[in-house]
Amino acid sequence: MKKIIIDIYGSDLGPLSVIKGAQLILDHYDDIGLVLVGDKELINKNIDNERIEIIDTKEYIDNLDDIFNAFFKKQNASLVLASKRLKEDDNCIGMISPGNSGALLIGGLVNLLKEGVNRPCIAAILPAENGGYVCLVDCGANTDCNAIQLHEFAKFGQELMRNLYKIDNPRIGLLSIGKEDSKGNRLVKDTFVLLSEDKSLNFVGNFEGNDALSGECDVLVCDGFNGNQILKVTEGTARRIIHDIAKYSKENNIDNSELLNHLANVYDFSTLGGGIILGIKKPIIKCRGNSNETTYLNTASMLINMLNNKSLYDRKK
Amino acid sequence: MKKIIIDIYGSDLGPLSVIKGAQLILDHYDDIGLVLVGDKELINKNIDNERIEIIDTKEYIDNLDDIFNAFFKKQNASLVLASKRLKEDDNCIGMISPGNSGALLIGGLVNLLKEGVNRPCIAAILPAENGGYVCLVDCGANTDCNAIQLHEFAKFGQELMRNLYKIDNPRIGLLSIGKEDSKGNRLVKDTFVLLSEDKSLNFVGNFEGNDALSGECDVLVCDGFNGNQILKVTEGTARRIIHDIAKYSKENNIDNSELLNHLANVYDFSTLGGGIILGIKKPIIKCRGNSNETTYLNTASMLINMLNNKSLYDRKK
Repeated sequence: MKKIIIDIYGSDLGPLSVIKGAQLILDHYDDIGLVLVGDKELINKNIDNERIEIIDTKEYIDNLDDIFNAFFKKQNASLVLASKRLKEDDNCIGMISPGNSGALLIGGLVNLLKEGVNRPCIAAILPAENGGYVCLVDCGANTDCNAIQLHEFAKFGQELMRNLYKIDNPRIGLLSIGKEDSKGNRLVKDTFVLLSEDKSLNFVGNFEGNDALSGECDVLVCDGFNGNQILKVTEGTARRIIHDIAKYSKENNIDNSELLNHLANVYDFSTLGGGIILGIKKPIIKCRGNSNETTYLNTASMLINMLNNKSLYDRKK
Repeated sequence: MKKIIIDIYGSDLGPLSVIKGAQLILDHYDDIGLVLVGDKELINKNIDNERIEIIDTKEYIDNLDDIFNAFFKKQNASLVLASKRLKEDDNCIGMISPGNSGALLIGGLVNLLKEGVNRPCIAAILPAENGGYVCLVDCGANTDCNAIQLHEFAKFGQELMRNLYKIDNPRIGLLSIGKEDSKGNRLVKDTFVLLSEDKSLNFVGNFEGNDALSGECDVLVCDGFNGNQILKVTEGTARRIIHDIAKYSKENNIDNSELLNHLANVYDFSTLGGGIILGIKKPIIKCRGNSNETTYLNTASMLINMLNNKSLYDRKK
């Protein structure tokens, strides 16, 4: 039986939310096993299923740890044990964790790096304005990058969108502060040259923040610091406007409930499945810290669909 | 008579939109003169007022020019002539331009730099979620910064918010990818140390993109590349949601027009007045390229209010 590894630590909502997510996965898929990494007693108290296996540990890497040192010193941290198991067990098809992005990246880098790859990155697949999807690389893992890495991220994104959505020649865009070729900081200008020169890429030029998710490119390349800003500024703005709509609707006695539900679904990226680590041999998917139990089910579906080479996931109605 | 210098070149909508804006300013203020820098024939054809003076030139610096070289080579470019006049003429109280941010910054740096300042920056005053205002520094001028510059931007922002809004001890926030002190890229981590150590600043820590405009800090510090992303991703998300609301309202025959007007006003940052160059002796205000004629009037009001030490401007209803 194929198994998915789930690290129960790192969620803002505590490990129970992850365990509840695991239960949803078991309920939804009857041919998948889970390897849960975390406190055995807690897990056994809350889940009872013959398709689970537990790797018992109470140690974890949190957001305050010095990530590089923590990964190598905390050999019993859930995330470290999980990535080792993923490497060693051919039945394990992938891993899901709400843990620290940097540590997950190191886990992939140390245990599962593909030959010839410089740095793995994390991709997020986001709903675009035109109804399609945009693959954002890097969405938060590598906060300091060079142009060679950003060029590599473009190629990872190209491969992902080709496999998942059957887009023959994904359009690659570069996040900048103007559409003109000459606009950007040093990193963007250097990357622009590399992307332009690589004839295997369908590079369509610079994109500004207001068109980042327009859908006019299939892959948007940026460093992880900026990728994180795109995700969070979009969410923050949506949260604020949704609040405005709710207030207005109440004050004016107008029924905008369907609209509000729609917006909450599209712009709550935490439910979208999760970020996919690229550049490694098996999928590791990072869920946002505020993910709820449904997110873990969506993420498992994404992982299973990725392996079946089907569409990554269906956008929520 | 006090005069404001207006550079008519650099607008995405062409120089006529700026000239119309100048007319609005003259209509609104009867005790202010304007120095218009641009094509004399075009200006004279479209505006007839004894309170204008024209500096005749058809040369300008556009977004495609190599800005540093262009500023020094194109000695008759509108923006170059305007910043020289601002330096030399005591009756000129400030300057407004929709031109290239980088070139405006150089104009300030070359002609009007305050003693002891390392690099000027551009501040945007944005409407916050809690009803107040956030001063975003740098909002797009300096794409590559070091920690010393970001520390300086924090001090400029502190001074601006103190003068304009009478906030005794403005709260300074630093844009990062997590609230924890340890989160960020190298630049943010270095800046965190400098801001923490400066006891003259009320530094309140890191802010993530989703809380950038919450209003929990009065000044948000970041480099110009990220500042530009905050502005544009916020605008892009708002544009998208406003479109969703309009579509839903039409399909369901619901009157959300008042809500739509409100959102369009709050999130169209191009009408907000403009970015203020800080670190120089007299105000230079950069209007966004897509500014309409009303923006130029709002900007002139902001400039006049700044000098009167009144509230920067009243948020549009």
